[in-house]
Amino acid sequence: MRIRVINPNTTESMTALIAASARAVAGPGTVVEAVTPAMGPASIESHYDEALAVPGILQAIASAPEADGFVLACFGDPGLDAARELAVGPVVGIAEAAMHAATLVGRGFSVVTTLSRTRGRAHDLAGRYVGAGACRGVHACDIPVLDLERDPGVLDRVVEVARAALDRDDSDVIVLGCAGMADLCARASAELGVPVIDGVAAATVLVQSLVALGVRTSKRGEYAPPPAKPYTGPLTGFGITSG
Amino acid sequence: MRIRVINPNTTESMTALIAASARAVAGPGTVVEAVTPAMGPASIESHYDEALAVPGILQAIASAPEADGFVLACFGDPGLDAARELAVGPVVGIAEAAMHAATLVGRGFSVVTTLSRTRGRAHDLAGRYVGAGACRGVHACDIPVLDLERDPGVLDRVVEVARAALDRDDSDVIVLGCAGMADLCARASAELGVPVIDGVAAATVLVQSLVALGVRTSKRGEYAPPPAKPYTGPLTGFGITSG
Amino acid sequence: MRIRVINPNTTESMTALIAASARAVAGPGTVVEAVTPAMGPASIESHYDEALAVPGILQAIASAPEADGFVLACFGDPGLDAARELAVGPVVGIAEAAMHAATLVGRGFSVVTTLSRTRGRAHDLAGRYVGAGACRGVHACDIPVLDLERDPGVLDRVVEVARAALDRDDSDVIVLGCAGMADLCARASAELGVPVIDGVAAATVLVQSLVALGVRTSKRGEYAPPPAKPYTGPLTGFGITSG
Amino acid sequence: MRIRVINPNTTESMTALIAASARAVAGPGTVVEAVTPAMGPASIESHYDEALAVPGILQAIASAPEADGFVLACFGDPGLDAARELAVGPVVGIAEAAMHAATLVGRGFSVVTTLSRTRGRAHDLAGRYVGAGACRGVHACDIPVLDLERDPGVLDRVVEVARAALDRDDSDVIVLGCAGMADLCARASAELGVPVIDGVAAATVLVQSLVALGVRTSKRGEYAPPPAKPYTGPLTGFGITSG
Amino acid sequence: MRIRVINPNTTESMTALIAASARAVAGPGTVVEAVTPAMGPASIESHYDEALAVPGILQAIASAPEADGFVLACFGDPGLDAARELAVGPVVGIAEAAMHAATLVGRGFSVVTTLSRTRGRAHDLAGRYVGAGACRGVHACDIPVLDLERDPGVLDRVVEVARAALDRDDSDVIVLGCAGMADLCARASAELGVPVIDGVAAATVLVQSLVALGVRTSKRGEYAPPPAKPYTGPLTGFGITSG
Amino acid sequence: MRIRVINPNTTESMTALIAASARAVAGPGTVVEAVTPAMGPASIESHYDEALAVPGILQAIASAPEADGFVLACFGDPGLDAARELAVGPVVGIAEAAMHAATLVGRGFSVVTTLSRTRGRAHDLAGRYVGAGACRGVHACDIPVLDLERDPGVLDRVVEVARAALDRDDSDVIVLGCAGMADLCARASAELGVPVIDGVAAATVLVQSLVALGVRTSKRGEYAPPPAKPYTGPLTGFGITSG
Repeated sequence: MRIRVINPNTTESMTALIAASARAVAGPGTVVEAVTPAMGPASIESHYDEALAVPGILQAIASAPEADGFVLACFGDPGLDAARELAVGPVVGIAEAAMHAATLVGRGFSVVTTLSRTRGRAHDLAGRYVGAGACRGVHACDIPVLDLERDPGVLDRVVEVARAALDRDDSDVIVLGCAGMADLCARASAELGVPVIDGVAAATVLVQSLVALGVRTSKRGEYAPPPAKPYTGPLTGFGITSG
Repeated sequence: MRIRVINPNTTESMTALIAASARAVAGPGTVVEAVTPAMGPASIESHYDEALAVPGILQAIASAPEADGFVLACFGDPGLDAARELAVGPVVGIAEAAMHAATLVGRGFSVVTTLSRTRGRAHDLAGRYVGAGACRGVHACDIPVLDLERDPGVLDRVVEVARAALDRDDSDVIVLGCAGMADLCARASAELGVPVIDGVAAATVLVQSLVALGVRTSKRGEYAPPPAKPYTGPLTGFGITSG
Repeated sequence: MRIRVINPNTTESMTALIAASARAVAGPGTVVEAVTPAMGPASIESHYDEALAVPGILQAIASAPEADGFVLACFGDPGLDAARELAVGPVVGIAEAAMHAATLVGRGFSVVTTLSRTRGRAHDLAGRYVGAGACRGVHACDIPVLDLERDPGVLDRVVEVARAALDRDDSDVIVLGCAGMADLCARASAELGVPVIDGVAAATVLVQSLVALGVRTSKRGEYAPPPAKPYTGPLTGFGITSG
Repeated sequence: MRIRVINPNTTESMTALIAASARAVAGPGTVVEAVTPAMGPASIESHYDEALAVPGILQAIASAPEADGFVLACFGDPGLDAARELAVGPVVGIAEAAMHAATLVGRGFSVVTTLSRTRGRAHDLAGRYVGAGACRGVHACDIPVLDLERDPGVLDRVVEVARAALDRDDSDVIVLGCAGMADLCARASAELGVPVIDGVAAATVLVQSLVALGVRTSKRGEYAPPPAKPYTGPLTGFGITSG
Repeated sequence: MRIRVINPNTTESMTALIAASARAVAGPGTVVEAVTPAMGPASIESHYDEALAVPGILQAIASAPEADGFVLACFGDPGLDAARELAVGPVVGIAEAAMHAATLVGRGFSVVTTLSRTRGRAHDLAGRYVGAGACRGVHACDIPVLDLERDPGVLDRVVEVARAALDRDDSDVIVLGCAGMADLCARASAELGVPVIDGVAAATVLVQSLVALGVRTSKRGEYAPPPAKPYTGPLTGFGITSG
Repeated sequence: MRIRVINPNTTESMTALIAASARAVAGPGTVVEAVTPAMGPASIESHYDEALAVPGILQAIASAPEADGFVLACFGDPGLDAARELAVGPVVGIAEAAMHAATLVGRGFSVVTTLSRTRGRAHDLAGRYVGAGACRGVHACDIPVLDLERDPGVLDRVVEVARAALDRDDSDVIVLGCAGMADLCARASAELGVPVIDGVAAATVLVQSLVALGVRTSKRGEYAPPPAKPYTGPLTGFGITSG
């Protein structure tokens, strides 16, 4: 099976990191194809970035009709509903994958994310994905996304914030709130003594699971293919022709 | 005061309709400037359309630093959080305006919208904007957006669906679920005998009210200006330079 | 248009303060008529006071059939549902107006109120008016209502409590939880650097907006005029005769 | 022990009915004292009536310092929070008593009430008193309150509405939504084959239980005695003097 | 009337304590029969213990067809739904009894329980039994269940944890989160100055109340007697034969 | 890897069906070991059956310390929290697996279950596992569990109930509400044209995913191993010795 893992930002080194994380958990028959969008922001750290990452994501889905499923590798799960309209196979965001997985191994999780301003989005997504009370807190490391791969102190900082979160939130699982933290997962778990969930890996195995189940995105109702219509300006190529 | 009313789709005749609706309720000192985005879909009838309308909306906000406030004239309130990061003055979506207004004159409202597939988005927005139980149902007329201005039977159809909704939902106010229905408001209210809320008009007077109060979008935390960074491809122009 | 702003307590100096706040934001064609009820408590600081303020409020509504709309200028929104049964035009409470306005310019607000014992009511109202998570905390200054206009240290105390609330609640907007704080709004906002919402001003522009939209209280269902019947004792005058 | 059961309306025959219902379940050592307020509406069928019943209720509490507990015998539980500030012993409303009792003997209840316009209040109270999903529906018989004791067809109508409610709501317990239905309880239960809860009886045994437990209304925080202050006009007698 | 109070653990001294607590509040005509199950754990301090206490509880119900009602005297309310299927009379758990009672005399309660690991269960039960916001916190004393009767410092520790909880949670009532704390109730209330609810006593008077009302467990739907079928192994005796 | 799939009832033919369903989706390196408990009910159709299935489930977990993960193959997810205390590897119930999977491929699902009386449990579980609004309805076929494998009309009946559910609930995914329906999944999906989720298969691939991620049940807090203590009677063997 072929899973396309989409890095919603345009930074190639982050795509490589994400690809490695996905491949580390994929089964023997699974081909992971990691892609960087042809347009959009260098990193996603605001609602503005997230909204403007969506055209590149949708293009990356439309250009891969042969893929069996898709992973959206940004913790804001940008454009998830639109992606599901476009795709035939399943589409899973890394926030939803990580949050679902967290509820299977603990009673309540804390999210550790990058910048403070992204916490609201994580709370909104938790409200959509999991039952009340499962997400017990969202905490920021105050490290910009692209510094994650450059800054040698990142692991220590994430572990420090996570440890405080476990106590303050009375939680028992940590969810990493950024695709750029994927490589910290095992080490953080070893230091903290609790499960630590990286959404990239979690989404990869979830998509693989759905494909194994033979389940695709429902095309009844809201996720039916978008209606045909013309588009204008730099987005003209996104227009959909009927048939 | 100067209010920029943004039609998120690229159909000029709909911009004209929206402009008329906004101007009909604006106060004497208010200049309503209605704009059509330079890019995006001809109408918004899916999550895909909605996501791809956002770049044009954000451009329409960034290009009007002199505006005192903004109305997003699509019932999905596309890109609302991103728009608030970008704008200094208040930004109000027509779904949130209509839903808030409805709760001030009744105990529970029903939304009457265009296509069935857009109902989920209206439910999501109600969950965000108003208290539990205020939105009692969302019902579709099954009329495509651009047929609203062409089809002579639209008023009858909207009234028929609204009347059934009032009974089934035990509601006492109707919210029109599409900017393209703005001109039906007074006639529908007269036929139904209940308040009927058009979001374009409601958002216009709400923005006007916030400006009169001297209140702008909070720049503490999540709605602070987006961080500077480069953008790539056809979206390069959306990159933000620091300072 | 004519808006009747009702001070639910019987202290004339507070009515004057409320009138000034409402007039400062009302449009050119709006006449603000502020009234003090003919019966009831000198200030509202308990459920007991609030319940006993309602007869005076209802009398103030019944005696003004010519008013286009009403503001209830106590943060507990006393008697709101009963007032809506009685009035033809819209009736807006200052808590609901302030809370709705706060959600339009920020992601989460904190309420700063007078006495600790009134916080529960504010929480209840937030649960009714706005979506989950919008009201992030309610904090008391521990200043009795009638001391607000006498105590020179009120502004400093409100700013201090508000600043702590912004940090503790991770909020980005302050809602003033008492009509008697109306005159502090601009100064508190200047000191805090975030939007500060005074419900009296907010309710005045909201009622004005609803009247501009041509929207009145729905008379279908729960807000239909109350059924005719005799009343007894000192409340005999509240009896309603049919027709 | 001495329980004061307050009929919030001023109709003496209804006070007699309520007294009989309370006495039928009270224990051997319990004196039930049923009172009719000295002011207020002849029946309670609107928010207006309910709000204006509260002064009479509060007077009935303040004038009985020797009572061990109080029942508020109107299904809207009017003035409950204010009554708890005033009373030392426990105060229980018949809606809360009936709803709590219903959750102890079934999985989900339906309320059968008098007029359609009172259903919203019942929904609001259920949201406050019991867990999500416990109240599965509120249905009206469309019989005015004072016709309950005059109309020979009341039992049949209540049973008919209740039977339809059990099916439609998938419920297993019926809550009678008006004190005036107290005498129908046993017969309705026999016909329907499910528990039918009359709030007057339920509140009486609940107050008795709380007194037996030695538990009184908490005076820490929100239910502390209301602050002293002057009152004006026909309500002057409600003023509270300090100490 | 005859109420069977079931101690879900197998420690006889705790059954004696529970019996004393129930008898202290039971009315003159009520016989309290306290029983220890014939199988199960010596104390209940985990989900594992709680699950394995249920067979003994169900046996204690099945063997007392003459009882008018049942109390489940463990704060996790183990097997409550199963017990209701089996019993004809009402069955009340001590957590639900205590939580309901607490909402009748205050605005928000805190639970003080034994071990930290049992807090999650208390939160889950509050979500089921009472309205949102009623349970404001659950706090552990970190005293094992069977040490409650041995450790002379228990009262001081419970009072200390409760006092901190009242402040931190802004609550006004304390609920004791373990049947083994029943004898602390009056002393803790005297020290804290707020109502303190012991679930054993509360459940006893609630069952007594339901029997006085003539109300039994609904046999319509989910609580109908369990379908007949064979059981295997050590549980063979739990098999149900039809008719 | 080795996954133990536990059939919570004692019917061997159902264990065989469940084993086949799990093996059909398991990856090449996964050994599925399906077990029938040594004690408990022949089928699970009530809260009583479910509670009494838990000892057998716990024994099946305790006796397999070498297993990498566990599936609880009854849609009520009986004893899930207790099982997680006992197990080192992940434990997934088929209701939670199916519900999570359903939210990844649609906007709202309907559950189709066996007997009407089990619907309440499915609603409770949905409230715990997934966000508000995801579970749009639970519908019964009114076929006893053990008739599922005997009755040739089962597929038609399930499809009929599912089709009506999709329309009535406005849902886009079907969740099969009983392990005994596992073999209907593909055929029902083909007939209905929407994804149909069998929890046995879904739980198997989810456990496999968690093991691939290297994630185990958190032992911090609530899911720590249960405290040591003696057990009595037929359950003596469940006692836990320290160390």
